[in-house]
Formats: sequence, C-alpha cells, structure tokens
Amino acid sequence: MTAKPIQIYDTTLRDGSQGEGVSFSLQDKLSIASRLAEIGVNFIEGGYPLSNEKDVAFFEQIRKQDLGSTQVCAFGMTRRKSMKAEDDPGMQALVQAQTPCITLVGKTWDYHATEVLRVSLDENLAMIGESTEFLGRHSTVIYDAEHFFDGYEANPAYAIETLRTAAAAGAKWMVLCDTNGGTLPERIAEVTGAAIEGVKEYGVEIGIHCHNDGELAVANTLAAVDAGATQVQGTINGIGERCGNVDLISAISNLALKKDGYQVLGGKSLQHLTELSRYVYETANLQWRNNQPFVGQSAFAHKGGMHVHAINKAAKTYEHIDPTLVGNERRILISELSGRSNIVAVATRHNIEGNKELMDKILAEVVRQENRGYQYENAGASFDLLVKRIAGTFEPHFSPIKYRVVSGDRDSKNTCEFAEAIIKLNVGETLWFDAAEGHGPVNALDAALRKALLGTYPCLKEMRLIDYKVRVVDSGAGTAASIRVNIESGDEDETWGTIGVSENIIAASWQALVDAVEYKLHKDELPLGGEN
Amino acid sequence: MTAKPIQIYDTTLRDGSQGEGVSFSLQDKLSIASRLAEIGVNFIEGGYPLSNEKDVAFFEQIRKQDLGSTQVCAFGMTRRKSMKAEDDPGMQALVQAQTPCITLVGKTWDYHATEVLRVSLDENLAMIGESTEFLGRHSTVIYDAEHFFDGYEANPAYAIETLRTAAAAGAKWMVLCDTNGGTLPERIAEVTGAAIEGVKEYGVEIGIHCHNDGELAVANTLAAVDAGATQVQGTINGIGERCGNVDLISAISNLALKKDGYQVLGGKSLQHLTELSRYVYETANLQWRNNQPFVGQSAFAHKGGMHVHAINKAAKTYEHIDPTLVGNERRILISELSGRSNIVAVATRHNIEGNKELMDKILAEVVRQENRGYQYENAGASFDLLVKRIAGTFEPHFSPIKYRVVSGDRDSKNTCEFAEAIIKLNVGETLWFDAAEGHGPVNALDAALRKALLGTYPCLKEMRLIDYKVRVVDSGAGTAASIRVNIESGDEDETWGTIGVSENIIAASWQALVDAVEYKLHKDELPLGGEN
Repeated sequence: MTAKPIQIYDTTLRDGSQGEGVSFSLQDKLSIASRLAEIGVNFIEGGYPLSNEKDVAFFEQIRKQDLGSTQVCAFGMTRRKSMKAEDDPGMQALVQAQTPCITLVGKTWDYHATEVLRVSLDENLAMIGESTEFLGRHSTVIYDAEHFFDGYEANPAYAIETLRTAAAAGAKWMVLCDTNGGTLPERIAEVTGAAIEGVKEYGVEIGIHCHNDGELAVANTLAAVDAGATQVQGTINGIGERCGNVDLISAISNLALKKDGYQVLGGKSLQHLTELSRYVYETANLQWRNNQPFVGQSAFAHKGGMHVHAINKAAKTYEHIDPTLVGNERRILISELSGRSNIVAVATRHNIEGNKELMDKILAEVVRQENRGYQYENAGASFDLLVKRIAGTFEPHFSPIKYRVVSGDRDSKNTCEFAEAIIKLNVGETLWFDAAEGHGPVNALDAALRKALLGTYPCLKEMRLIDYKVRVVDSGAGTAASIRVNIESGDEDETWGTIGVSENIIAASWQALVDAVEYKLHKDELPLGGEN
Repeated sequence: MTAKPIQIYDTTLRDGSQGEGVSFSLQDKLSIASRLAEIGVNFIEGGYPLSNEKDVAFFEQIRKQDLGSTQVCAFGMTRRKSMKAEDDPGMQALVQAQTPCITLVGKTWDYHATEVLRVSLDENLAMIGESTEFLGRHSTVIYDAEHFFDGYEANPAYAIETLRTAAAAGAKWMVLCDTNGGTLPERIAEVTGAAIEGVKEYGVEIGIHCHNDGELAVANTLAAVDAGATQVQGTINGIGERCGNVDLISAISNLALKKDGYQVLGGKSLQHLTELSRYVYETANLQWRNNQPFVGQSAFAHKGGMHVHAINKAAKTYEHIDPTLVGNERRILISELSGRSNIVAVATRHNIEGNKELMDKILAEVVRQENRGYQYENAGASFDLLVKRIAGTFEPHFSPIKYRVVSGDRDSKNTCEFAEAIIKLNVGETLWFDAAEGHGPVNALDAALRKALLGTYPCLKEMRLIDYKVRVVDSGAGTAASIRVNIESGDEDETWGTIGVSENIIAASWQALVDAVEYKLHKDELPLGGEN
C-alpha cells in the first residue's frame, strides 16, 4: 500500500505566539523557521503582516533563507466590508509579504458574520470570494474556515457555502478550524466528511486546525485525517491561546508511528522532534513540559523496582514506541545513569568517542551539571569547552581573579539605575584590573571584560553578543531559585551559545560571558572540532 | 432518556504518586481523599498496603473519616507463584486494610506471565482466580487487567481468558488498562467491545484505565465509555508516571458537559473541579498548568483586540463551555495586540468604565508602557495599581528612597558569589534603612525590603514569592537589552502577578517586588475592585 502524504502546516510563529507569555523576537522567528524547514514541515505560517512591523521584517528576511521545499505563508483576514479587495490595506500587506502561499481566514458562523462583523450573510460570502480571488492572483491561497465546526452546528448549509465560495474563487486548501476547541472526535469526523462532500467538485484539499480546550486536539486531528483531511495545522509543543493548539509533535508522531497508511514530513526521520521541541521551549522562554508525550524528559522515564527490572528485560513491552524514533531516550530514575546518546553524538565531533574512559568522565560530568540545572542543547560552545577541560586540552586565554558589580537607583550624580563593574584577571603574567559602567550589571561586566582583554586580543572587536536569555530553573523557589543564563554570541563567521547557572543571576551571567569569550579566542586559533 | 451512570475511580494517591517529583505525606493523602469524596468520586484508590507504612497508616485513618458513599480501595498484585493466596503477605495486607473494595492487578499479556513473572500461562490464570476468590471473601474485588490492550494484540484469546478467570472467581469489575498508553481510540473501542462480549455471561461491569503516552488518554477513555465501559479510572490533573494517567478533570468534564446520556459524580455539580485541581497541585508541590483544559488559568483567557470585542458581545460563541460550570472564570488579558476593548473589560472591575476621560488616560498609559516592554497579561496586580495611580486613588504604604546591591565572587571572607542589598524607605514619617544578604541580588533586595516593612505590616509574613520569571524583551541588543521581570506572589487566599521592565535586571526586579508588596498591603485593607 502506498502511504498517503499528509502535509504539515506549522503556525507556531503566528497562532503559537498568541499563547500567554510567548513572544518571539525577529531573530527567534527566523531561527525557528529554519529548524522547521530542516525537519521537513511543508508550510510555515510566519505571521500577520498588517500593522505588525516585526512580521513585515520577518517576511522580508525569510525570503533570503533557503528553506528547501518548505513554503512560507502570510496570514490575514478577508477584506473589510464595503471595500474593494485591492484597496484594502490588509490585502495589500499580504501581497507585499511576497510569500508562495497566503492563508486567508474567513467567517463560517452566520452569527459571527451578522453580529461580530456586522455584515449580511451575502456580504460575508462576497468578502471571502473576492479576497480569495484577489490574493490568488499572487499566491496559492489556503482558506482557513474559522469556527467551522461550531458554524456547521448552527447553520450547516451556510457553513458549506462559505467553503464553496472560497473554492470557487480559487483557494487550493479548505482548512476546517475548531476555533473554540470543544468539538468531540466523532463529530469532527462526521463534519469533515460533510465538508469534503460539499466541495468535492472543486478538486480542493482539506486541512484540519484543532485547539485543545477539551483535551482532544490530537484525537480530533487524527479523526479528521481518517475522514479525508490531508493537511494538519498545529504548533510545536501545542503552544497557543487558552489551552493551546494541537501539538504537532504528537500529531506527527501518531500519524507516522501509530497509524497505517500515512506519510508525514516527506517520509523523513522523526529523530529531530525532541531537539526541536526543546529548542522552541527555550526560544519562547517557556518551561519544558516533562510529561509531554513522545518528547518529554519523563516520557520514557521508569521508576519502581520490579518495573525497571522488567524494562531491562524487554523494553519494548513497557514502552509504546522506541524512544529513539523521536530522538528521545529512556531514563531510569533514581540511578540517573542513562545513555544520553545526544551527548555522545556531540563528543564524536571531538574524535574522542573511541576513548571509553574519557567518554565516561564526560558523561558523568554532564549528568552532574544537568542536576545543577545546566542544559547543553543551546550551549554548544560551553559544551565544547567542557570537553576540552576534561580531556586536558583546554588552555585558558585569561584567568579571572575576581569581579564585583554595584547597582542601584542613585549614584553620586543622582542618575537613576546605574550599574558598575570591576574585574581583575590575568593574561599570562600580566595583571589587568579594569572597571566599566553599563546599562545593567551584566552589560557593565561585559564592558569591563572586553576593556581588560582588547589590548591582548584585538579579535574581540569582531565579537558581539546576539542574544541574552534568562530563565529560572526551579521557579517554585521564588527569588532564591537557580537561574540559568544563555548567551548567544557571534562574529562574521558563526554564532555560538554559552551557559551559566547559579542562584545569583550575576554569577550565572559571568560564567556564560567568560565561556563566550574563551570560545571566540579558541576558535580563532584553531578549529575546536567543527561547527557548533 | 435516562442518563447512564459512569463511576469515577480516582487513583491520584496511588498511580498519581508514581509521577516524577510527586510525593504525598499521610496528611496530604487524607486531605485529598476527603476532597475527592466531597465532589462525589465513587472510588478512591488509597495505595499499596504491602511494604509501605504510610499506606498502611492511611487505611487505618481513612476508616475514621466519613466519606459518604465514596468507597476506598486498597491496591495490590495477584498472589506470588506457588503459594496459597491466604499465605501470601501481599494478600494478607490487602485484607488487613479493611477497605470496602480491593483492586487486584493481574497480568494479561502472555509474554509478561512467562518472561517477567516466569510462570506458565496456566499458573498465571490460577494466580488471578485464587487471589480474586480469596479477596472476594472480604471485599468487593475490582480486577485491573494490566497491559490489557497490548496483551490482546499479542494473544487475544489468552487476554480474554484472564478476564473470564477473574469474573468467574467473583470479581465485580473488569478494568481494562492501557498500561503503556500507546493505543489509538478506535482500537480501544474495538477491544473494549471484545472484552465486554468475552465476559458477558458473568454480569460484571467494565472499567477503563488509560495513560497519556500518545496524548490520547481522554479520547481513549471516552471511546471505551461509548463502547460500554461504566467505570473511568484516572488521576486529578493527570499526574502519574511518564506522561501521566488520564486527567479525570477532562474526562469528567467531557462526559458531563459534552457527551449525551452519561451521568457522573451522581449528577453533582462540577463547580469544585477548578478548586480541586489547584488543591492537588499545591499539595503535590507541582506548578499549575496554566493551559490545562477546563480548569487552567488560561483556559478561558482571551487576547487580541477584535476577538475580545467579540467576546464581550457573545461570550458563548468564543468559549466551548461556560467557565463557571467547572468553577473557572474568564480572563481578559492585557496585551499589545489588543485594542481598547481589553482595557474596558478589566477596568469594569474598577467601576470606572463610565468615565471616558479616565479610560482614555489608562489606555494611553498602557500603550506607553507596552512600548517600553511591559505586558500586563501576567501582571494583573501591577495593572490594578496602575489604574489606581491614574485614577488618583493610590495611596502608597511606603515610599522607596533608594536601594543598592553589591554582588561579586569574593567577599572579605573569601566566600564565593555573595550578594548584599541596602534599602532606604519611608513608612509615613518614619525612615527605615536596612540591609540584607541573599542568594542573589534580587533575593537580597527582597529580604531587605521585608526587613524594613515587617514591623509596620506583619501581614507580610503570610506573603510568599511563588514564581520569578525573567525575559529579555529585545534580545537582539545582547546584554544591553530591556529585561522584563514577572513575579508571582501569593498568600493563603490568592496569587497575584507583578511586572518590572528595565535595561537593568536589578531595577526591573525591584519594580516588580515593590508592586507585589504594595498589592498585598492594598488588598488586605480593602478590595481593589474584585479578584485578580
């Protein structure tokens, strides 16, 4: 049997960014898009280009990236009432985004047309039809039927008519949205069937867009696919408004590994799903969900004596899938000594994987550091330095002796919110003692460190700090919690990530800063064993 | 149509306690049991009385509590091989627990019998039958068929035979366990049907016990009920090993509010579900899941301008259920994507929505603050204070004059990573100047602030910091970027969020700390206009 391809449409950058506490910078959005393209996602919804400068800039910059066969979509609403599509600023912004696809959302529910938009049912159809027709001159149109399932309950004939209007005007995809997220799987299947029947003469394809308000988003998505949908919309980790969108991680994993007859991601391996999941959490500055299906840290964690014993005998009878299929790993709790194959994989770059004793030392140190809150996923440069330190090949370019920062809201000149840093370090035999002011204590430390080193290492001029992230590791402990700082640095050739962890945010930042500078100095001398 | 009663069987105290990081004290278990009985749960699995003193004590003490019609169950495994049931210490411990019900777990999967237990298939049946018969002399026996769905795939005839053996020996309930959590809903329905058919001559009832490894536990539970199961096993908030058990909150809510023809909790109201969910999180010392379906803090949170405008018009068309049905509430988030209507909704709580001039001032201030990086969606307390300040009704309980922090990696005693804070403030006419040390600069500031205020405001003793979040607003600017700090505080009655933004992380934290304390002092005096 040939597997039926199911297209994956990611809306992490648009619908996901509606999630409480989620906000992506432009650089975040570009990086996530590039990761999504790497794993073979078919469509990436980049944002809403009207009245949002960050999204406009995203579309300008993403055009310069090579995303392979992945298509970027701009998202927008149907034209305003009583206005020609070509005169509507929203329509114009969509066209100016110059994306291969445009996702147009329109009203399905008669009540929303008449009471929220305050237009007649006919005018709503005209808005759908004319907007589709106009946008279709420039790009492929994906039509998102908002509130499709609730609209269908209220007025099935009208709901189908909105789809037929978009299809007749040239939209290629009809995406059925369970916007309120409260529909049950059996009803999703029935109504999806009715929609397919309703538009069958147009030769369009059907997509499904589920929210998780009833904790049924994954089941609903699978039910729609079984009923004939060939596109799945969702977000990585299910981030999104209220209870979130369907988690694409679970949808993809179930379609590829559990259901028969479907192909996702062009048949590519799912082994990067765990890494992708964690990358998106880190970028969105959200806590990982340890019990997340498939990719969570606890998803294949086992405790309880006999159980663990049995697992060692016959893993597959205690695990619903092989964790490595999705890039995850088994963890035996209590004895934290698990495989950590990804660390092994990274160490391979240092050509030390044959040295079992050294590998064991590295593994033990990584476990120790992880227990203290370190995570090396986004801190490849710190990991490289750690490997060099353990291997005994690390030669420091400078030796910090001490630092101190002072910060407050009044200095002698009565300026608000001042910060000063003092540092003392050795470069070889030379002692440097320098001080600098900054916008905050970390900025002041950074400035003082560069001041002390620039004379010896002029290449630091090229180095800049690209990103600075802070997260509380054990947030339950309030202001006494451990804090993890990630710094991303770059020069003309590459970017690299470093990490620091401490109960003291200044100390954590200092560790990450020192590693960032050391990595730069090491890599300018000789390759550290490949890219980060 | 008469609704069919579905029995709710809670295993939070046993299977839930297998979750990573979960551990209940004896008092925790007794309190949770009492809450579960109050909402009308039919069965409470209290624990495993063999080799666990806490569980033995639980069964002794729970007998003294009046749980109404709720029945307590002790949980244990079938007798050991080659031993009489009455001689097995596990069997004896179950009887000594003196519970109205005993839940007995047995092996369904032929492989597990022969390879894990190392007994013949016949001996496994004998263990099931004799254990059931023995326990049935003392209590009602609920038979949990471990790995039922996987066992059925491997050897359907044998899997059914294990059930028939338990039924013939007098067990009243056959509970089908998807122990590995990886079965799909359609297969759950088919196999549940086969099980019902297989034991139909015994007049027993069927239960379902799902795990969430495929993110399908809720759908699987509903599918089994539709196929004829009349008992649902699960845990509050879905806590449990790996990806957890089915969340009873979602299972109950869907059965009662979404599906037709079922009655749960004896038809009692679901209005205590939100409170119960939070109580269990607090007791287990776990973070609330904000996006949890039905009962999460974000489950009925709305942002986005036009959207909120529409919600005020017709809440029910934007919410899959009325949040009050499960004891939850609608939240209107304040956010940069929102227009005026969000502000209006929140301001309504302050009874100022009629004052257009004031509303315009608030709106202008919110826009100004949002442009500086503030986001009030998680900082309702800071927003309440902002409204009071603009309305001219804010009366500060203290006036900060200055603060200063010093942090470094060496102090005079050569201790690593020290942090000290000094603060100066007025309470009325009294000047306070205090200093404190801390784990980091923010912790030190927090300590110094409390030290200065506690004499005047002893109620601050009840206040604790629950969560501390840091995020870089414009991360592209490196260590000179704006930093946003969110602090969540709580006392016995409620939790509240505050915010601070600055290029200096210490300054941002200080703002959020001051707001957190001011909010506590204001709310203890008089209501600020309703709950936050």
